[in-house]
Amino acid sequence: MTTTHPTITLIEQRISANRFDASHRLADAEIERLVQLATRAPTAYNLQNWRFIAVRTPVAKARLRAVAQDQAKVQEAAVCFIVCGVLADAQSLAERLQPFVDAGFMPVGMAQGWLQAARRQYASAQAVRDEALRSASLAAMTLMHAAQALGLASCGMTGFDAEGVAASFGLAPEEVPVMLVTVGRAAPGNWPQKPRRPLAQVLEFA
Amino acid sequence: MTTTHPTITLIEQRISANRFDASHRLADAEIERLVQLATRAPTAYNLQNWRFIAVRTPVAKARLRAVAQDQAKVQEAAVCFIVCGVLADAQSLAERLQPFVDAGFMPVGMAQGWLQAARRQYASAQAVRDEALRSASLAAMTLMHAAQALGLASCGMTGFDAEGVAASFGLAPEEVPVMLVTVGRAAPGNWPQKPRRPLAQVLEFA
Repeated sequence: MTTTHPTITLIEQRISANRFDASHRLADAEIERLVQLATRAPTAYNLQNWRFIAVRTPVAKARLRAVAQDQAKVQEAAVCFIVCGVLADAQSLAERLQPFVDAGFMPVGMAQGWLQAARRQYASAQAVRDEALRSASLAAMTLMHAAQALGLASCGMTGFDAEGVAASFGLAPEEVPVMLVTVGRAAPGNWPQKPRRPLAQVLEFA
Repeated sequence: MTTTHPTITLIEQRISANRFDASHRLADAEIERLVQLATRAPTAYNLQNWRFIAVRTPVAKARLRAVAQDQAKVQEAAVCFIVCGVLADAQSLAERLQPFVDAGFMPVGMAQGWLQAARRQYASAQAVRDEALRSASLAAMTLMHAAQALGLASCGMTGFDAEGVAASFGLAPEEVPVMLVTVGRAAPGNWPQKPRRPLAQVLEFA
């Protein structure tokens, strides 16, 4: 731990951007790269219970802004991702584990054990929703770090009308819009990183 | 975007470790550094509605393992963090914004506007819980990236008895244990990163 890894610097310097260069566009291939990196985030049982809608045309951005408290950055940033968590079911988990079984890493019996554990864990609707929130948030954070590593600014947003987003973008009943993440080129005038609470208020040793 | 930022490689190479070097310890200062970095994650309204319990003594680890499906990595990793999201209230938000007002970045009127918006947004218990899940998950992901940048392995875990964790570690009623994150030195025998779903299944352009 003698030299500083660039990721440490990146974490320390990340800001939530509010001002974006409205003339900047991202190619669809760049957007694909961002989502590919976001999906490297971990999920419970490798569920990958997420979906990403990359809102990048003027018409779609206007539709999203209308259900996102009229926040200008939805339109000004090159892309605004709707990051959805998906309410998971046993069938989708079995599908997700199969490639790892096929690749010879996970024995069939272990995959069956994971399925049983997941059925127990997701017996309540709240537990299922919680997992959708977790997975989508882990992906959103990875997406923001990836964006910064690619020289882009980002902002996570939770101020939106979930029902409006679902209706306006045709989400399936099992898809929960968890966060919006704008990504683009920062314009001048953004705030620095906001102050953080002292460590003593948030950390306990046991 | 011509050269690859080390964070891109880090994201692509991160694995969820199951095997840790049980002889490896982290100094409390190293644990503090990890949490300091985790709290650089963004939160809605800069709420910072989180708390971290660093479980690193043998006795405390045994207590945690007993409510975490008897998973060995809870004890074998140098530290297992209980990452809690906190059910936020208007009072704590006002306290969080004050340093940014005092520093001259945020006008008083804007802070009042944020407070009003937060009151509207968090009118339902589900919305408050969702925000606790989101904030803690964003911090957990940042913690895992930070750990990797410091040469350590990690594993996020959602398989635990939330009530048992709360009782065993004296969580306050407003604290939700969202994830466990083990951090330590990887031992041989970990799996590679598990296969990811094809992008076409998880990305839509709008």
